[in-house]
Amino acid sequence: MTKRIAILGAGPSGLAQLRAFQSAREKGEETPEIVCFEKQSDWGGLWNYTWRTGVDQYGEPVHGSMYRYLWSNGPKEGLEFADYSFEEHFGKQIASYPPRAVLFDYIEGRVKKANVRDVIRFETVVRHVEKVGDKFQVTVCHLPEEHVYTEEFDYVICATGHFSTPNVPEFEGFDKFPGRILHAHDFRDAVEFKDQDILLIGTSYSAEDIGSQCWKYGAKSLTVSYRTQPMGFKWPDNWEEVPLLVRMDGNIAHFKDGSSKKIDSIILCTGYQHNFPFLVDGLCLNTANRLATADLYKGVVWVHDPAMFYLGMQDQWFTFNMFDAQAWWVRDAILGKIQIPDKATMEKDVADRIAREDEGKDDYDAIKYQGDYIKELIDETDYPSFDVDGACDAFYAWKGHKKDDIMTFRNQSYKSVITGTMAPAHHTPWKDALDDSLEVYLQN
Amino acid sequence: MTKRIAILGAGPSGLAQLRAFQSAREKGEETPEIVCFEKQSDWGGLWNYTWRTGVDQYGEPVHGSMYRYLWSNGPKEGLEFADYSFEEHFGKQIASYPPRAVLFDYIEGRVKKANVRDVIRFETVVRHVEKVGDKFQVTVCHLPEEHVYTEEFDYVICATGHFSTPNVPEFEGFDKFPGRILHAHDFRDAVEFKDQDILLIGTSYSAEDIGSQCWKYGAKSLTVSYRTQPMGFKWPDNWEEVPLLVRMDGNIAHFKDGSSKKIDSIILCTGYQHNFPFLVDGLCLNTANRLATADLYKGVVWVHDPAMFYLGMQDQWFTFNMFDAQAWWVRDAILGKIQIPDKATMEKDVADRIAREDEGKDDYDAIKYQGDYIKELIDETDYPSFDVDGACDAFYAWKGHKKDDIMTFRNQSYKSVITGTMAPAHHTPWKDALDDSLEVYLQN
Repeated sequence: MTKRIAILGAGPSGLAQLRAFQSAREKGEETPEIVCFEKQSDWGGLWNYTWRTGVDQYGEPVHGSMYRYLWSNGPKEGLEFADYSFEEHFGKQIASYPPRAVLFDYIEGRVKKANVRDVIRFETVVRHVEKVGDKFQVTVCHLPEEHVYTEEFDYVICATGHFSTPNVPEFEGFDKFPGRILHAHDFRDAVEFKDQDILLIGTSYSAEDIGSQCWKYGAKSLTVSYRTQPMGFKWPDNWEEVPLLVRMDGNIAHFKDGSSKKIDSIILCTGYQHNFPFLVDGLCLNTANRLATADLYKGVVWVHDPAMFYLGMQDQWFTFNMFDAQAWWVRDAILGKIQIPDKATMEKDVADRIAREDEGKDDYDAIKYQGDYIKELIDETDYPSFDVDGACDAFYAWKGHKKDDIMTFRNQSYKSVITGTMAPAHHTPWKDALDDSLEVYLQN
Repeated sequence: MTKRIAILGAGPSGLAQLRAFQSAREKGEETPEIVCFEKQSDWGGLWNYTWRTGVDQYGEPVHGSMYRYLWSNGPKEGLEFADYSFEEHFGKQIASYPPRAVLFDYIEGRVKKANVRDVIRFETVVRHVEKVGDKFQVTVCHLPEEHVYTEEFDYVICATGHFSTPNVPEFEGFDKFPGRILHAHDFRDAVEFKDQDILLIGTSYSAEDIGSQCWKYGAKSLTVSYRTQPMGFKWPDNWEEVPLLVRMDGNIAHFKDGSSKKIDSIILCTGYQHNFPFLVDGLCLNTANRLATADLYKGVVWVHDPAMFYLGMQDQWFTFNMFDAQAWWVRDAILGKIQIPDKATMEKDVADRIAREDEGKDDYDAIKYQGDYIKELIDETDYPSFDVDGACDAFYAWKGHKKDDIMTFRNQSYKSVITGTMAPAHHTPWKDALDDSLEVYLQN
C-alpha cells in the first residue's frame, strides 16, 4: 500500500516540503501520497497578511504576526531559493529589503510553478495527532463545515512555525493601565500609534522593527525596556532604552533604575513560544528558541519517533533556504535514500550540535554555525549547491550596516549568491517610502 | 463502580452545577464523582477579568470578554440566586446595577460557602471529547506542564459558555484601515478611545454598552452602523446611528445611505459564536443564539446522546438563576430522579419550544417565555421556588427605564424577589461614577 505523509502547515517550511517531493517526482521518482493541512484559507504562513488579531473568523488563534509596512529585516540575498532566484521570479534583479507583499509573491511564484496546491486542504486545522501502533492518527477539523475527521498516516512533518503563539508576560499594574497593551503578534499598523508615547518591552527583532515602524510613521516617543542589555543602536532623538519595567502605576511606567515615564500604549516584544496544542506528550517538541533545538536529529528528525519530523523549528538567521535544505533532507529520509541511525546515535548528534552552538561567542559565530548546518544538509541531497559562505557574508555586512545606522541599513544592496547579480539601490530611502505595495517597490 | 461526571468550565453555569450536586450531598444523597475542567487559573468564567486579549500566557484563546468599568446591564434583581441572596452575601441590600467586581464577588461567595473548589482542575483545557462505547473519553491538557492526558467519564456537562468566541465579519477596506479594528471581545478600557471618532458595528448589548462606556470616558463621537434597524434610544448629541457600513476607504467609512465619516477606531459588536473545538461531530451543539436552542431537550439534554448535557447555551434574559434551574434539573436527571424520555419525545420537545418561541412578538414575550422555562425546570426539582414573575417585572421596568433615558437607567432601583427588600439608590449617578471598584460601589 502507498505510504501516506501528513504535512502540517503550508507556510514557507511546508511549501518547501511540497516542492521537495515535487522535485523528486519531476525526476521520475515515486513518492508517497501527501496531504498538507493548512488552517488559513491561503498558503504562505506568516507571509499571508491578515488584518485580524486574536482569533479568526472560525475562532482559531490568528496565525499571522506580520504587520502593514513590514519590510524584510535582513537582506534577501540571505534567503534566496537556490532553485528559484529573484531574477527568475521578477524577470529582473530587485532591491535587497523587499516588503512583505513582494516576498509573499516570490514564495508563491515557486510553488505555483511546482503546481502543488491541490494536495493542500485549506481551512483545515489539525486538532489531535497521536501514534497508534505504527500509524499516526491525525484528527483535523474542516472549519467552514465544523467537520471533524481522522485519517491515518505513516509520517508526520510538523511545519507549523514558531512565531505565532506569543509569549506574554504580566507586569504589575497591567490590569489597571488605561491604554492598549498588545503583543507584537497583534501589531498591525504603525499609524495607529502616531503621536503616542510608546513603551516597547524586549530587545529582539520585534522591538527593533516595530519601534522603527512607529518612529517612521510618527510616534511621539519610543521607550524600549530591556532585561539584560540595551540593543545599543544609534537611535533617533525621541527613542531611549531603559532598564526593565518594574510596574505601571496608571499610565506611568516605573523602571528598575528609578526613572519613570507617561505611556499611551504598551507593546510587548517578548517573543514567541513553540506551541503544538494538537500533539500528545510523546510527540511534542519542547525546546528553547535556539539554533540547536532539543530532540531533533539533524535538526529535523524527532529522536523519540523517527517517523515524525519538524521543519524550521530553529531560531533563524537563514530562513527559506534553510527550510529547503531541511525539506530536501527529510524527503530523502522518507524515500529511504538517507538512513536514520539508532536512537543513541541521534541523541549524540543532538548533544553535539548543542555543544557546538554553545562554543560560539557572538552573532557572527552563530551565522556561520547555521550556514554550516545548511551546507551539511544540502551535501546529503540533490538540493542545488549554492555559495552559503557568500550568504553569510551578506549577513555580516548587514550587521555592520545596522550598526552604522539602524534607520538607513535597508537602503543598502548585496550580491545574489544564486545569480551573482548585484541588487540595485532602491528608488526611495526606507524612511521616506511609506507605501509598501509590490507595485511601488518594483519600480526600480 | 462510581459513575464519573466531567463538567467542562467553571464559570457561572459550571459553578451552578457544582453547587447543585453539593446541595444534594448536604441532604445526604450519594452523588457521582465530579471533575470540573477549567482553562483559566481561577473560577468565574467571563466574570474573571483579564487585561489579556487574543491568546493567553499558554497560547489558548482568551476566554474573557469583559472590560474595565463594566456594570451589569440589567438589574441584579433579575439574576439573584434563590439560595443565596445579595443580602446574605454582602450583609445588606445593595444598588441594582453592580459593576463586574461586585458580581464576581457575589458568585464566588456562594461557591466558597459550598466548598467545591477542590474538584476543579484549573489551567486545564479540554482538547478532545469523544464517545467510545458507553464512555466519554475526555482528553485535556494541563497547561503549565503541557501535559496531555485522557480520562473516562459516564456523563459530560458542557458549560463553556457562548460569549467568548467572537463572530468577526470582514468589510471591504479593513486590510488598509490605518487604525485599530477590534471585536467587542477584545475591548478592555474605554479610556483608550478618549477623543477618538469611534465606529461601532452592530446593535445588540455590546454596541449599546461599549458605546456608552466610550461616551462616558470621553470619546469624541460614536457612530453605530446597523444592518436592519437602529437601536433607537435617545442618544447623546455626539452619537448617531447609520445604516450598514459598505466599505472603508483609508480612514473614511462609507455607509449604505451614501453618507461617510472619518473614523479613528472600529469596534465590531457583531456577536459571538457557539464554538466547541474540543467536540467531535456527533456531540457538538450547532445552534443559533436563541431562547429555544436546537437539539437540547428541556434546553439541556443533548438529544443525540442523553449522557451529554449543555448548560447556559440559550440567548439570555435570565442568567445565574436560569443556570441554577438547569443545573438542578441536570443533577436530578443524572441521579435518576427525573426520567429522560426516548429520542422522538425529546425531539418533539425541542420542536415545540422552537415553535413557542417563534410565536412571541417582542422582547416582553421573550422575557416571559424564558421566565416560564425557568418555572418549568424548578417545578421538577428542589431548587428553591422564587417569584419568577416578579423578576420578569423587574426586566419589564428595566426596558422602560432604558427607553426613557439610556444614560440614566442604571440609577434606578428594583425590589428583590428573594428577600422582598427594595434596593437602595446608588450613591452616584452611573455617568459620574468613574471608579468601578467593589469598595466604592458598596459605600451605600
